[in-house]
Amino acid sequence: MKDVAIIMGSISDLKTMNKTVETLEKLEVSYELKVISAHRMPQEMLYFASQASQRHFKVIIAGAGGAAHLPGMVASSTILPVIGVPVQTKALNGMDSLLSIVQMPSGVPVATVAIGESGAINAAILATKICALENKEYESNLIKYQKQMHDNSVESGKNLE
Amino acid sequence: MKDVAIIMGSISDLKTMNKTVETLEKLEVSYELKVISAHRMPQEMLYFASQASQRHFKVIIAGAGGAAHLPGMVASSTILPVIGVPVQTKALNGMDSLLSIVQMPSGVPVATVAIGESGAINAAILATKICALENKEYESNLIKYQKQMHDNSVESGKNLE
Amino acid sequence: MKDVAIIMGSISDLKTMNKTVETLEKLEVSYELKVISAHRMPQEMLYFASQASQRHFKVIIAGAGGAAHLPGMVASSTILPVIGVPVQTKALNGMDSLLSIVQMPSGVPVATVAIGESGAINAAILATKICALENKEYESNLIKYQKQMHDNSVESGKNLE
Amino acid sequence: MKDVAIIMGSISDLKTMNKTVETLEKLEVSYELKVISAHRMPQEMLYFASQASQRHFKVIIAGAGGAAHLPGMVASSTILPVIGVPVQTKALNGMDSLLSIVQMPSGVPVATVAIGESGAINAAILATKICALENKEYESNLIKYQKQMHDNSVESGKNLE
Amino acid sequence: MKDVAIIMGSISDLKTMNKTVETLEKLEVSYELKVISAHRMPQEMLYFASQASQRHFKVIIAGAGGAAHLPGMVASSTILPVIGVPVQTKALNGMDSLLSIVQMPSGVPVATVAIGESGAINAAILATKICALENKEYESNLIKYQKQMHDNSVESGKNLE
Amino acid sequence: MKDVAIIMGSISDLKTMNKTVETLEKLEVSYELKVISAHRMPQEMLYFASQASQRHFKVIIAGAGGAAHLPGMVASSTILPVIGVPVQTKALNGMDSLLSIVQMPSGVPVATVAIGESGAINAAILATKICALENKEYESNLIKYQKQMHDNSVESGKNLE
Amino acid sequence: MKDVAIIMGSISDLKTMNKTVETLEKLEVSYELKVISAHRMPQEMLYFASQASQRHFKVIIAGAGGAAHLPGMVASSTILPVIGVPVQTKALNGMDSLLSIVQMPSGVPVATVAIGESGAINAAILATKICALENKEYESNLIKYQKQMHDNSVESGKNLE
Amino acid sequence: MKDVAIIMGSISDLKTMNKTVETLEKLEVSYELKVISAHRMPQEMLYFASQASQRHFKVIIAGAGGAAHLPGMVASSTILPVIGVPVQTKALNGMDSLLSIVQMPSGVPVATVAIGESGAINAAILATKICALENKEYESNLIKYQKQMHDNSVESGKNLE
Repeated sequence: MKDVAIIMGSISDLKTMNKTVETLEKLEVSYELKVISAHRMPQEMLYFASQASQRHFKVIIAGAGGAAHLPGMVASSTILPVIGVPVQTKALNGMDSLLSIVQMPSGVPVATVAIGESGAINAAILATKICALENKEYESNLIKYQKQMHDNSVESGKNLE
Repeated sequence: MKDVAIIMGSISDLKTMNKTVETLEKLEVSYELKVISAHRMPQEMLYFASQASQRHFKVIIAGAGGAAHLPGMVASSTILPVIGVPVQTKALNGMDSLLSIVQMPSGVPVATVAIGESGAINAAILATKICALENKEYESNLIKYQKQMHDNSVESGKNLE
Repeated sequence: MKDVAIIMGSISDLKTMNKTVETLEKLEVSYELKVISAHRMPQEMLYFASQASQRHFKVIIAGAGGAAHLPGMVASSTILPVIGVPVQTKALNGMDSLLSIVQMPSGVPVATVAIGESGAINAAILATKICALENKEYESNLIKYQKQMHDNSVESGKNLE
Repeated sequence: MKDVAIIMGSISDLKTMNKTVETLEKLEVSYELKVISAHRMPQEMLYFASQASQRHFKVIIAGAGGAAHLPGMVASSTILPVIGVPVQTKALNGMDSLLSIVQMPSGVPVATVAIGESGAINAAILATKICALENKEYESNLIKYQKQMHDNSVESGKNLE
Repeated sequence: MKDVAIIMGSISDLKTMNKTVETLEKLEVSYELKVISAHRMPQEMLYFASQASQRHFKVIIAGAGGAAHLPGMVASSTILPVIGVPVQTKALNGMDSLLSIVQMPSGVPVATVAIGESGAINAAILATKICALENKEYESNLIKYQKQMHDNSVESGKNLE
Repeated sequence: MKDVAIIMGSISDLKTMNKTVETLEKLEVSYELKVISAHRMPQEMLYFASQASQRHFKVIIAGAGGAAHLPGMVASSTILPVIGVPVQTKALNGMDSLLSIVQMPSGVPVATVAIGESGAINAAILATKICALENKEYESNLIKYQKQMHDNSVESGKNLE
Repeated sequence: MKDVAIIMGSISDLKTMNKTVETLEKLEVSYELKVISAHRMPQEMLYFASQASQRHFKVIIAGAGGAAHLPGMVASSTILPVIGVPVQTKALNGMDSLLSIVQMPSGVPVATVAIGESGAINAAILATKICALENKEYESNLIKYQKQMHDNSVESGKNLE
Repeated sequence: MKDVAIIMGSISDLKTMNKTVETLEKLEVSYELKVISAHRMPQEMLYFASQASQRHFKVIIAGAGGAAHLPGMVASSTILPVIGVPVQTKALNGMDSLLSIVQMPSGVPVATVAIGESGAINAAILATKICALENKEYESNLIKYQKQMHDNSVESGKNLE
C-alpha cells in the first residue's frame, strides 16, 4: 500500500515528474509511478481512477502538458484529491497546460501547482501535507524539510553581507 | 441513423450550440443532440464515443468551456473526426477553452473552430463539408449556402455606395 | 473545532467566497469564515497561519484577487494544505490573481483552483476530499454529491432528445 | 488522383509540414505536396482552391505561420474541408498563427490543430479520419495506428514500475 | 477619382469604420466606401486589389475582425500602401484581429493601427498624411487638424487648475 | 535629399534595422540612418521630428523595443507618415514593443509592422510603396521586387513535387 | 509650491486620476493637476518636465492609457521620480497601458503601479511615502492612514464570525 | 547607515539584482544587500520591513520572480517606498512576476520597474532619484549619469552616418 500515486500523460513528462519523485523520497513518503495517457489509454485511465481509493492511495499527482486532460479526467472518477502539474510545453511554455488543468468546471476540482519543475516539487510537498494530517512521521518530516529550507535560505545570503 | 452527433459538456453550453443546430437545419443535415459531461459523466462519455462509429455517425461536434476536456476525450475513443467548439467563458473569454481543445498531443486530433457562436456555426458547416464528400445532396446544399453567403455579403454593401 | 478555515483578503471577495460557504454547507463540513488581508493585516495573517494547525483546522481556503499574496503567505507559515481561490478582477479578469497564486516557488505549494465562482465551489469540494480521507461521513456526503451532480447532468439533457 | 493536398505558405514551413508527410505515409494515405503562398501567389492560391474538388482531393491541409491567411483563404474557395496547421513563429511562438487560423468568421470554417509539429502530425490523422469514412483500408490503417499508439504508451511506462 | 478606398470585411464593421469616414470628411479627403469580404467574396477582393492602382486610389484602408485576412490579402495584390484596422471582437477583444493583420510575413506589409475606433480614426489621418505628400490642400488641412487637436487638449485641462 | 529617414532608439536595434537598410538598398530608395533615443535624447528627437518635413524626407521609419516611445513621439511632431518597427525583446518577445507602438490614441497614427526582422523588411517596402505614389522609378523597382518574390516562392516549391 | 504634480494624457483619464486627487487630499499632501498630452502637446510636455524640479515638485504622477508615453517621456527629462498610472483601456483592459509604462529601457525608470483606480490611489500613497522621507507631518498622516486601513480591514470581517 | 536596502527572494535572483548593485555603485549611493525570502523566511521578512525605517533606510528595492510576494509583503509593513523588480522566469518569462508585483490592491503601493536586468538597473536609478530629493551629492551624480547616458547614445550612432 502506497500513499501517493504519481501518474503522467507521457514518458516525455518524466523529466519534470522526477522532481516529484525525488521530493517524495526526501520526505520519505511512499509512492507508485505510472504512465497513463488520457488520450491514448482512456479505459486504463478511468479504471485506474475508479480503483485508486480502494487501493488505499491518499492522493493522486497527475502531470501533463498541452491540452492536459489527465488530471481533470482522473479527478472526475475518484473521491481522492488530485493534484495537477502543468508540464512546460514548447510553443506556449505551459500556459496551455496550466489553463487546461486549473480552469475545471464546478464540481470537479484539481489542485493545481506551478508550471514545470517547481510545480512538480510542490506537488510532492502538497501531497505530503495532505497525508501528514493523519501521519505523525510525515508531519515531522515536513517540519524538518521546512526548517531546512528556511536555514538554506538564510545561509545562501550570508556571503552577500 | 443521423450523420452528425452534437454533444455539449453542460446544458449551459446550449445557447452557443444552438447555432450549430440552426446551421445544420439550414443545411438539411441530420443530427442528434445530447448533453454529455466529460467530468460528470465520464463513463457515459467513453461509451458514447466508443459506439459512435457503429451507430453510423460520420462526425461528432463537441462544445465545451473552460478546461474543456470533452472534445479531446471523445476523440481518444473513436475513429470518427471530432470537431471542437470552444465555448466563451466568463473570466478568460474562452482562451482557456480554446487552448484546452486545440493543443492536443500528437495522435489524437480535434478539429477546432473559433470561440463562441461563430465557431458553433462553423462546426456545422465543417461537419457538412465532411459529410458532403459522399453525399451529393449535402454538397448541393453547401454550394447553395456558400452562394447565398456571397450574395448577402455583396448585398449588404450596396447601400454604402 | 472546525475542519476548514475560509479566509479572504477583502470583504469584497465575499461575493465569490460565499460559493465556498454554500458548498461546504451542502457537504455538511464545518468551517470558520474570516477576513484577513495579507497587505493590511500582515501580523494577524502570519499569526493566524502559525496557529492554524494547533487549532485543529485540516485545510485552509484562501481567496484573493490581483497581486494575490494571501494564499502563498499563509502557506509559508503552516504545515496545513492551503487552497487558493483566484478572485476575478476588473482589469485583468483574474489572470493576475491566478498567476500570483499558482506560480509559487518550490517549497511552498498552494493548491490552486479555477478563477472566480467555479473555483470557489471547487475549493470547498477539494477541502472536503482532503478531510474525507479520515472522515467516513464526509466521504459519504461527497459520494452523494458526486452522484447528484452526475444525475443532474444526465437529467439536464433529457429534454433535448 | 490523390486524397490529400498538403500546401504550405513558405518552404520554411517544410520542417514542420514534413511531420504531416511522414504521418500520411505511415497511414498509407496518398497525398500531394506544394508551396502556395497566400501573399506571394494569391492568384495561384485561389486557382488551386477552386480546382481542388474537381481534382478529387478529399481534404486540404494548409500550414502557415504569423498572420497565417493560407488556410482561411483556401477554405473560402472550396467546398472541401480544410485543416489548418499553425506553424510556430519566432516572436510570438505561434500564438499569432493560431489566432489567424482558428478565429475564422462564421461561414468559412478551418479545422485547426495544435501549434507546430504535434499539429502537423494530427492534421494527417484528422485527414485520414475524414477519408476513412468511405475507405475501409484507411479505416483499418487508422485502427492499427491507434492500437500501436496505445501499446507504445503502455510499453513506455513499463520500466518505471 | 477618389484618393482613398475604405473597405471592410463585413457590414457589421461599419460602426467602427464610420470613424474613418467621419475623419476623412473632416480632413476633406475624397474616398470610396465598400464591403468586400475576403472570405465570402475572394474573387471580387483580388479583382478590386489588382485594379486599385489603375483606378487612381492612393491608399487602401481595410477594416476587419477575428482572423482578419482582408488587409493582408489586398496588400498581396496591389502596389498601393494598405492600412489595416483591427476591429474589436467579442471573445478576444481584437487581439486576434491585431495579430492577424500586423504579423505579416516579409514582403507584404500592412500599415497597422490601433484596435477599434481609435485605429479607425488614425487610419484616416495616416492615409491623409500619405496623400498630403503631394497635395498641398490636404497638407494644410492636416496642419489645421493637428493644431486644433493641440488646442482642444490644452483647453480641456483649463478647468482643472 | 533622402526620401526615407530610418531612426532607432538604441544601437542595439541595429541588428534588426539593418534589414530595413538592406531592403531599401535592393529597392534603390535613398535613406538616412540615425540613432535617436526617445528617452535619452528627447530634445534631439523632437527637433529631428519637427525638421523632417522641411528636410524633404517623405517617410520616417522608427524602430524601438520595450516601452517603445520613439515612433509615437516622432509622429506627434511631424506631418510625415511614420512607420513603427517593434523590435523583439528578451522578456516579452516584442509584445511590449508592439502594443507600445500600435495602440496610439486617436489623432497620432503610427503605421505599425510585424515584430522583428520581418517587420523591418516590411517597413522598407511600405515606405517604398508610399514614395512610389509619385516616383515611377520606385514603382518599377517595387513591381520587379514583387515579381521576384512571387517567382522565388514558386521556384522554392518545385523540388517538392 | 506644491509637492506633487499630477498630470494626465487626456481629460478622459480624469475619472481614474480623481482617485489620486482624493487620496492626496485625505493625506493632506499638496498637489497641482494638469492635462498634458505626450502626443498632442509634446513641446509643453518636455517643457513641463524640464522645469518640474526647479518648480520644487518632489514627485510627478502621470496617468495615461493605450500606447502610454507620457510617464516615460516626462521621466526622460527630469531628475524627479515619476510614478506611472496605467489607465484601463477599452480593447485591451490596460495591458497595453501597463506594458507601455513599465517596460522602460535601462536608464529611465518609471515607478509603475496597478492598472486603473487601485493604481491611481496607490500612486498617491507612493508619492506621499516619498515626500514623507523628509516631512514629519506627511509621515504621521501616512501612519494614521495605514492604521485606519488596517482597522477597517479588521472591522469589515467582524460580521462574518 | 545605508540609504538603500536591496533584498531578493532567492540567491538565484542575484544575477539580476547585481545590476542594481553595480548601478548604485556607479551612482555612489550606499546600500545593503540581503537574501530574504517571503515564503521561506516570513518572520524575518516582516521583522526586516518593520525595522527598515528606524534603521534609516530611505528606500527598499525588492527583487523576486514567479508568484513574487516579497515586494508587496515588505510594502505592507513599512512606511518606506518599496521598489519591486520582477525577475524573469523560465516558463512565463516574468509576466507572472510582473503581475504579482504591480497589481497591488489599493493602500499598499509597490513602485514596479521593468522585467529583468533593465528593471534592476532602473530600480537603482529610481532609488537614487528618491534619495536625491534631499541629497545634493546624489543629485549631482544623477545629473552626471543622465548626461553620460545621453552622450553615449549620441556617440553610438556616429558611425552610422
